[in-house]
Order: sequence, then C-alpha cells, then structure tokens
Amino acid sequence: MIAVLKKKATEPQKQHLIEWFEMKGLKVHVSEGEFNTVLGIIGDTTELDTDMIGLLDIVESVKRISEPYKSANRQFHPEDTSIKVQNAVIGDGSLTIMAGPCSVESEEQIMTIAKAVKAAGATMLRGGTFKPRTSPYAFQGMRAEGIRLLKQAGDSVGLPIVTEIMNADHLEYFEDVDIIQVGARNMQNFELLKALGKVNKPILIKRGMASTIKELLMSAEYVMAGGNEQVILCERGIRTFETATRNTFDLSAVPVLKKLTHLPIIVDPSHATGKHDLVPPMSLAGVACGADGLMIEVHNQPEKALSDGPQSLRPEEFEALMAKVIKVKEAIS
Amino acid sequence: MIAVLKKKATEPQKQHLIEWFEMKGLKVHVSEGEFNTVLGIIGDTTELDTDMIGLLDIVESVKRISEPYKSANRQFHPEDTSIKVQNAVIGDGSLTIMAGPCSVESEEQIMTIAKAVKAAGATMLRGGTFKPRTSPYAFQGMRAEGIRLLKQAGDSVGLPIVTEIMNADHLEYFEDVDIIQVGARNMQNFELLKALGKVNKPILIKRGMASTIKELLMSAEYVMAGGNEQVILCERGIRTFETATRNTFDLSAVPVLKKLTHLPIIVDPSHATGKHDLVPPMSLAGVACGADGLMIEVHNQPEKALSDGPQSLRPEEFEALMAKVIKVKEAIS
Amino acid sequence: MIAVLKKKATEPQKQHLIEWFEMKGLKVHVSEGEFNTVLGIIGDTTELDTDMIGLLDIVESVKRISEPYKSANRQFHPEDTSIKVQNAVIGDGSLTIMAGPCSVESEEQIMTIAKAVKAAGATMLRGGTFKPRTSPYAFQGMRAEGIRLLKQAGDSVGLPIVTEIMNADHLEYFEDVDIIQVGARNMQNFELLKALGKVNKPILIKRGMASTIKELLMSAEYVMAGGNEQVILCERGIRTFETATRNTFDLSAVPVLKKLTHLPIIVDPSHATGKHDLVPPMSLAGVACGADGLMIEVHNQPEKALSDGPQSLRPEEFEALMAKVIKVKEAIS
Amino acid sequence: MIAVLKKKATEPQKQHLIEWFEMKGLKVHVSEGEFNTVLGIIGDTTELDTDMIGLLDIVESVKRISEPYKSANRQFHPEDTSIKVQNAVIGDGSLTIMAGPCSVESEEQIMTIAKAVKAAGATMLRGGTFKPRTSPYAFQGMRAEGIRLLKQAGDSVGLPIVTEIMNADHLEYFEDVDIIQVGARNMQNFELLKALGKVNKPILIKRGMASTIKELLMSAEYVMAGGNEQVILCERGIRTFETATRNTFDLSAVPVLKKLTHLPIIVDPSHATGKHDLVPPMSLAGVACGADGLMIEVHNQPEKALSDGPQSLRPEEFEALMAKVIKVKEAIS
Repeated sequence: MIAVLKKKATEPQKQHLIEWFEMKGLKVHVSEGEFNTVLGIIGDTTELDTDMIGLLDIVESVKRISEPYKSANRQFHPEDTSIKVQNAVIGDGSLTIMAGPCSVESEEQIMTIAKAVKAAGATMLRGGTFKPRTSPYAFQGMRAEGIRLLKQAGDSVGLPIVTEIMNADHLEYFEDVDIIQVGARNMQNFELLKALGKVNKPILIKRGMASTIKELLMSAEYVMAGGNEQVILCERGIRTFETATRNTFDLSAVPVLKKLTHLPIIVDPSHATGKHDLVPPMSLAGVACGADGLMIEVHNQPEKALSDGPQSLRPEEFEALMAKVIKVKEAIS
Repeated sequence: MIAVLKKKATEPQKQHLIEWFEMKGLKVHVSEGEFNTVLGIIGDTTELDTDMIGLLDIVESVKRISEPYKSANRQFHPEDTSIKVQNAVIGDGSLTIMAGPCSVESEEQIMTIAKAVKAAGATMLRGGTFKPRTSPYAFQGMRAEGIRLLKQAGDSVGLPIVTEIMNADHLEYFEDVDIIQVGARNMQNFELLKALGKVNKPILIKRGMASTIKELLMSAEYVMAGGNEQVILCERGIRTFETATRNTFDLSAVPVLKKLTHLPIIVDPSHATGKHDLVPPMSLAGVACGADGLMIEVHNQPEKALSDGPQSLRPEEFEALMAKVIKVKEAIS
Repeated sequence: MIAVLKKKATEPQKQHLIEWFEMKGLKVHVSEGEFNTVLGIIGDTTELDTDMIGLLDIVESVKRISEPYKSANRQFHPEDTSIKVQNAVIGDGSLTIMAGPCSVESEEQIMTIAKAVKAAGATMLRGGTFKPRTSPYAFQGMRAEGIRLLKQAGDSVGLPIVTEIMNADHLEYFEDVDIIQVGARNMQNFELLKALGKVNKPILIKRGMASTIKELLMSAEYVMAGGNEQVILCERGIRTFETATRNTFDLSAVPVLKKLTHLPIIVDPSHATGKHDLVPPMSLAGVACGADGLMIEVHNQPEKALSDGPQSLRPEEFEALMAKVIKVKEAIS
Repeated sequence: MIAVLKKKATEPQKQHLIEWFEMKGLKVHVSEGEFNTVLGIIGDTTELDTDMIGLLDIVESVKRISEPYKSANRQFHPEDTSIKVQNAVIGDGSLTIMAGPCSVESEEQIMTIAKAVKAAGATMLRGGTFKPRTSPYAFQGMRAEGIRLLKQAGDSVGLPIVTEIMNADHLEYFEDVDIIQVGARNMQNFELLKALGKVNKPILIKRGMASTIKELLMSAEYVMAGGNEQVILCERGIRTFETATRNTFDLSAVPVLKKLTHLPIIVDPSHATGKHDLVPPMSLAGVACGADGLMIEVHNQPEKALSDGPQSLRPEEFEALMAKVIKVKEAIS
C-alpha cells in the first residue's frame, strides 16, 4: 500500500500515522520528496480500510498495490479452480449450461422442462423456488415445495440442481440442492454470505446491479473467509441509463475476472437483457469472451410463466442455440 | 393500466389476453385504432406485473396509470404521515435531526457524543451496532453490546435511538431500539422487509445505491403490506460514474417523494458524499428542498473512528451547522 | 402515439390539445375511460416532441407507437443496408476489420502499421489525425498532414481509410478520406451532423458515452435527413460506475440495433475497454453477437504511442486475433 | 505525480521510463521498496497523460499529486474570480439570476418575459436562439434573428443577455451577446472551446450529462488556455439510471467545485429536473449549498412553448420563488 501525505502534514502527525501502521504489524518505508512524503506500507494489508486512510486529513491519496481479497485472488492461487457437482464440473475448460424456468410452477411444468433441457445439452437444471420480487403483491415462489419438485425433476433426468436462497433461515430446505445461488439483490447481504461460508456446497454469487467487479470478489471473499472455497461468480447485468435492455450486460467482466481470480465465471443473458430474442446472440458472445458457462431461462409456455416469462427461450429455441454455442466454444478453443 | 397491442396481434390472441385480465377481476375497455388496439384495464391493478405484460409477444407497450404501491401512495392518503417516537415526531413539519457516530465503539465514546449532539440540538441518537462491511476482514460492529450502550446513552440524555438491522434473526436484540434502520444494501432484502412488517416500531428504509425512487416505495410497501405503516424513507446517494463524491446525492428525490407518498423523508449527507467538508452545505440543501430531517455522522475523534471517520463532523462543527440549519428551515417556512 | 390524459383535465383543455394535434395534420381518436381519457394520435408523428407533450399539465403519460426516426428505421426499410467503399463492403454479411493506430504519428509509423494490418487481414486502415483530447495540453494530432500520410499508406497497401472529423470547417481536408468518423464526444454535435448530411461519403457515428441506443439512431437520422444515407453505427462503450474498464462495453446494443435499424453496426473493443489484453476476448464476443465489423487499434510500438498506446495490439497479437475472429464468424454463420 | 512500477519491471525498462520523464524536463525521485519501485515525478506534469502512463506494461498505478488543470485551479489562484457583465457581477458573493424562456419565439414573447423576470428580480436574461435538438425534425431555434430579439428585449429592460452557441462559425452573430453559453452536449466540442478561448466575453460552460467534475474543469481549461479567463461553470444534471427526473441533479458538485476552482458556479434546476414543480425546491437547495447563481426557465405560456415548456415557471411562480431564494441566501450568509 502506498500512502501519499499532504505537504502540510507535520512531523508529529507523520510519526503518529507510521506508528499506527507499525502497531498493526506492518513495515513502513518513508520516502521524503520535494513536495510530498510517500509511505510504502509493506506486509499483509488485507485488513486495512483504504477508504478510511484515504480520508485522513493529512493523506493526499492512498493506493493498494495488492488487492483486499486473498482467498479469491489469482495471485495467490494461479491455477483455475474447478468445482465438481455430481458428475458435472464447472471451471475445467468445459462449458456448463444451467437451464430451466425462472420459477418452478408445478410438477408437470418442471418435469417437461427438465427433460427438454437435458435433451438439448444442459448440464444443470435451474429453477426459482424462493423468489425475490420487487412487489409484495407478486408471486413469491413455491418455496420448499418448489425445491422438492426441482430435485425430483433433476434426479429423474440426471441433472444437478441450482436454486436461489434468500435467507439463511431457509438453509434447512436446501439440503438436496446441489448449488446454492445468491441473487443480485443479496450480493451484499453479508449475514447470508457468512452463513454460506459454513456450508459444504458450491455457492453461485450473482453480481449486484450496482456492484463493481471488485465488490463481487469481496462478496466471494466473505464466503471463502468462512471456509467454503467453492464459489462460482455470475455476471447478470448492471444498472445504467440505457433502457433498451433490462440491465447492461457487462461482458468485459468475464476477461477482467479471469485475470483477477481463479474462480469460475458464468453469465446470465436472460436476466441481463430481459428479452428472449437477445438471449441467443448474447449467449454466443458470453462463450466467445471466455465464460465457463451460461445460465439460461427456458420455459415450455413462456406466455404463461408466472414470472419473467418473456425472457425465456422455448425448448426448441434453446436447442437451436446449444448447437451454435458448441460451435463457438470450439472456435475459441 | 393501458396496454397497446401490436398490429400483428390476432383476434384470438387479443381475446386470450382480455380474458386473462377479466379473470383477475379487472374490466377491459378495448379501443381499436387504425394501427393499434389499445386496452384500458380498469380496477385494482396493483398486483399486476407490468414488466411481464410488457414483454408479451403481442404487447407493444404497457403503462400504469396508477402506481403499483397502495399503502405508501399519497393518492389514497393525501395528508402527511407523522410518526411519534418517545417525545419526538417525524414528518409533522418540524425538523428531525438524527446524529451520532457511524459505529458505537465504547461506552465512553457514545456517552460523549450523545451529550454533544443533544446539546447542539439533535432530536435522535444514531449509532451503528451491526455493521454491513464490504470486506469480511473489516470491523463488524459491537452488535448486541453496542445496542445496549447506545440505549444507555440515549436514555441518559433523553434521545430516542436509531440503529441498523442486518438480519431478522437479530430482532430480539432490537427490543429497546426506537427506530430500526434498513441499510441501502438491504433495501431489497425482501425477507427482512417482510419480518419488519410484523414489528410495531418505525422502520427507516435507506434507498439502495442502484434503486429507483419507485423501488424505494415498493420496499416501503413490503413493510406496510405486513401491517406496519410507520415507515420513514431516506435518500443517501446513488451510484453513478462521478467519483468526486462517494455517491451522487440525489436531492431531487425529496420533492419527487413528497408528491408520490405521504411518508416522511430524511436525507443522509454523510454517507451520500463521504466527505465531512461536504456535509454542511449538503445538509442545508437537504433542508432547503423540503426534507423532514437529516441523518448526520458526528464523532468526537473522527481520525480514530473505527469506521467512516473522515466523513464525520466534530461536535463543534455539528453545532455550527445546526445554527445554519435552523435559519434555512425558517427561510423556507 | 398514445397520450393518456389526467383525470382532472377539463373539456376545454382536452379540446385545445386535440385541436393542436389536428392542426399538425394528425387524426385523433378519443377513448373515454372510467378514470382517464386516452388519445390515439394517428399519422406521421415523427416531428412531435414526446417529452414536451408528456410534461403538459393535463397529460399523465405519452408513448410513441412508432419510433421518431424514419430513414434509419428498419420498419420502413426491412433489408440490410450495405455500404461500398472502394473494393470493400460493409454490412453485406462479411466482416469489416478497421485497424490501425490511435494517432498517425509519422510516415514510417503509419506505413509500417498499414502493411502489418493488411497482411493480417484488415479490410480498412484507421488512424487518428484530428484528435479530441480531454486536456488542452495533450497531443492534438497531425491534422491535415496526418490525413495525407494516412491516405498515402492506405493507397500503398490497397486499403480504404477511416479518420475522425471534429469540425465541419475541416471538411476540405477530408476529400481523400473514404469513411468520415464522428467521435463519441461529437455524437450530438448537431451542426456537424447536419454538415455531414450534405457529404457524399459514408459516415461512421460512434455512440456517445452517455447516449442511449435511440439517441444514436436520432444522430444517424440527422445525417440521413440531410440526404446522406450511408451511415455506419459504432458501439464503443458507455459510462457507468464500473472502473475496471474504461467504459462499459454494451454489446447488447448490437442485436438491439439489428432489430431497430437496417444500418451496419461495428464495435470498437479498444476504446470500450481501454486495455489491450481485453481486446481479443471482446472482439470475439462482438463478432459472436452479430456485429458487421470491428475497429481495432494496432500499433507497432504501443509503449511509444503518442496517444492511447496501451490499449493497442501489436501486429503479431492482431494477427493471432484475426485467425480466431474468422473461426468465430464461421461458427455463427 | 507518483508512479508505482510492477515487480517484474527490469532495470533497463525502469531506466527507459525515467529517461523519458527527464527528457520532458521533469525530475524523478526513485524509491526502491521491497515489493515495488516508486517513482516520484517532480515538476510541471500538467501535460503528461496519466491514463497513458498508467497503462504502460511496467506501471502498476499512477497518481497525480497536482491536478491536470492550471488556470482553473484554486491552488494557484486562491481568491474567487468574479466576472463583470454590464452592471451585473457573477461570483462576488451576490446571487446571479439568469431567467428567461427555453427558446426565443417572437418579439412579443421575449419582451413580455423580459419585463416579468426583471420585475421579479432576475439579473440576466436568458433565451435559446440556436437550439441543439435530439431530433432533426424538431424546432431548431430562431438563430440570428432570435439573438437580435433577445438583445432588444434585454436592452429595453436593462438586463445583460445569455444564449447558447453551437458552432464557432456562428460567432459573428454573437457580437451583442453578453455571455456565451456552451451546452452540455458541446462540453467536449474541443474545437468550439478553443475558438471561445480567443473571444473577449464570459463563457458559461454547462457540464455534460456524462462528464465528471474534473472533465468540466478540463473544458474550462481549454477556454482559459486560449487566453479567455472569464469562465462560469454550470451544473445541470447528469445521466443515471433514475428516470423520475430528466437527469440527476448533482448539487454536491457545487461545494466540490468551490474547493477545486476559483471560477463561479451556477446551477440549472430547470434542465436538471425537467419538471416545473421541482424547480422551486431545487433552486432553494442550489442556493443553500453555495451556488453563485441560478439559471431558470420562465415562460408566460408554458403550454404553448416551442421547446421544453413544461419545465418552465410562469412569471408569478418565478416571482414567488425569488422571494424565498432571497431568504435562503440570507440564511446562509
């Protein structure tokens, strides 16, 4: 960490700050310039709060040399992490395809879709059960019963299942879930992240709509700091002024994350764009820029879906997309 | 609600949609134009999901005439809501001043600050106890013990207390808390909002960094739909491309909210700007545009604060500000 | 256009508004609902200002059914527009590759790069000559002399040239330029757009950093309304809160634009990301989601470039990328 | 300027970079740390391009100690700049009120409004003559004839006039204009800024919708570097995801700018919010946080205005607002 002190900083003030760093077990290298004093702070600065130091009255600016995340940092863990779920692996160079409806609605619905996506090449079955909805009056999901139906459908076609958790209190219902998803709105629900750090299951964290790439990594760090290193990251669009798409799909996050972390990264074009006809081109783009997988909404009757139907692909559209996805994956391999 | 159908919509498709609305107890008024069919949907459309309807294949666009929030809507509740907390009232035309440290750090610290802010004119004592921190390695707050100290300090100077909750499981510790705050990162933690709908205490909801004004109202609606109508809204900055301030303080939200809702609105210049020297001018601006109150960080030793110190005012700065705040309030009354 | 009037609108006010529309040659279809009056305005509403109507005191909301752009609208021109420049064609299903340095710096530099990009498969030579720079103290480009050198280099390797114009007064220097580029900062320099509407050369318009997709189309419309229908659109990143990349590359704009307009669309990963190592993955993503071409910065000595060097690919990196680009293009064809 | 080099930087690479700085007349102070080498670059670094240096392969990060603007920098010019226009002064602690219609529409209209705003306390008359419009089909302003009418109206009531320029070619028509305005969309039209640097009139620069506060200062620097030091800055809203207001009014920019520069700062609540009922509260907020003045749209018949009518105040509303504005100004003085 480099801290540049203001010209007006007095000697006692400087000494005070240097001692504070030393008290925390860090070494400080002082470089007196013509205009400024520069402190080089050496050691494990992960737990220092840059913002706080930067706002001290005598500090001109402060800059981390190393990132504030340790467990998620590729620098300390150069090889890719791959995560095994039943007979599927995420992050080993293969392409993970999580497909299924936005919400589990009935046994028939989820069974029909499970068969269709399996046949078309999906490697995991996704489906919403506990649903975060902006309006208290909107459908809130089938909850525990939804998980039971999802599991049953996954088992019957041989696909691991992925579903979202909204509260640590619900963990008891997630015993049969293969991958627990943290939604965008809960990316900084730190109490939930801490609880998931104690769970022995892969956690898929979606990037918050107003969260930077570094904050996404800090949320992964919360889970990893608790002892659970099986974290999968997911880009699903950020909020900007553009209204032609529901969110702005920040695909550059994929190669940026690949540099910063060893964790697998998947992308979700369905939620990012909010429009089914944009899902195929943006899925191909996601694969082309190096994502480890896709999360795609598929519904047999999109017009009747209880939530987010119009962004869902029909099974036949999904099948057509999978054929192209495989070709693009080969093209970049 | 007005739904404009696409030219290509067939008669059976139109009938199907009209019946769907009617099934929900709504009346539909059809207007066939040269280029488009326009449906006027009449009745209580609060529970309809506009996004979903808008994305239907045959729908060109959909527009609510009435807003999707009922309890929070000024249209159905024209007079201002005022909320009584001990001997203080929020929203009755007076100015509520919530002041105190970002974090409760020790008995001595919170007692010192409580006395200072009371003397300077604060009407409530705020202090963080359960802290949402981006990094798992940062100070997480004194938690239950912090609440005990905050209560003791509030009682000793005669100020009601405000502190943030991060998880419904912690509610047992909040028995003595006068106003429960929901932080920006939890504004769409719907499970928490539902739990707070069952509590008989005022809830202060901070606007999320990427949340629209309407989404803030929908979060208030979650609490109110549960039966708790004592909700206070708080503008604390949104995330934009500008980096000169921590967030962009969206003060226009104050008059916009005043039109849309009857709930009291306060503003938090400390978190919005992140810089103590911007707090006084932006506090005055907040009062000038009609806010019902201010939430301001005050610390006796900002340079030693365990969190967010540099955005805190010293007691003497806070006192000087209060004098001006009163003058501006008078000027606009 | 649909205008929903407020409940409080009086009969004379309604009549006044209806007459105003009729005075503009439009037909108005009135539909009186229980709660609102809805006006369906029929005819060519291109020249109406929705914002203005929407803000009238008696208007609840207003919504265009048809878009405010005519010439650029795919609805009135369903087949793709393709633009011929010397022996290259843009928008005919082939892939256009515009490559070259951010700035033309010397005869030797541009000649070296021109040969390299031609050999690697570029179809056009790009190079900055009049440079828009944030700081008045930064290098402002070689200007007219730069164009002369660029043309000479293009001719010698057989590539058409593309360079940016900053002011209509400079048009005299652009006689030998094959495609005139309008930069992001000038996307709404309407006087410049009008002047380019009179020019008989293709105009490449880059999307402004804070411009919506619809505003980009309105800027195209400015040029086309002047009589010049040879317009190429370019996505180059928008400004958001994320700082890991220079801008946020909004690739979804490609399929969105493909639906709305018949004009060709290229993407510029060099300016969007600002980092050379992100250029290859994001170029592949751009091709995968259907862009008609790429604009890529290539420099033989990026570390010595007078502007934007570090986002430039070296010729050998560009060559390696071209091989993959071709494979991805085949994969989606 | 502080440049932190990467660990992997070789000695020859370091030497190469150090020599490059020295060649530019700067002194370099090298500090070798355990993990990094830090270069302190001393001298006038105004003309260095931080972005470019920061992206060099061997540079970890680069940070300016001094800002890249000189003439606009308060550090080198601590006292406030005040600008005299006829008998009005901007920036001397008084409040400047620029009021008038969005567009000059006719002699009668501008005369009526001029009298009304003068009577209510305006100190300058504003009016659009050359209009930047998103659509080529919208009203483009009365242009030269509009300036003539504006001047005549200003003279008759004794108010200096302010109007916007869109192109340096139009300068000949601006001879009688007292303050030339650069609109938000032209804030980075560098050719126009350069031309205005040669003019002997005050220039009012509006902040671009996607421009940072620092970029606004760099645009001021363009004009000042040309020799014209009479620059007035104007905050008028930035583009964010919030749609309840036309733009997000970033009032914190006022105190931020007051720290960074000695130039006067005014605010424009009419364009920032786009809604007339938000103009009064946000005007008061602007004054409360320290702005040197307001720019407010006033129209005698807002419903008939040819552009932006619905954000205009009626003369009587403007008069009522002025009374409160004066009280708030007194309250903070």
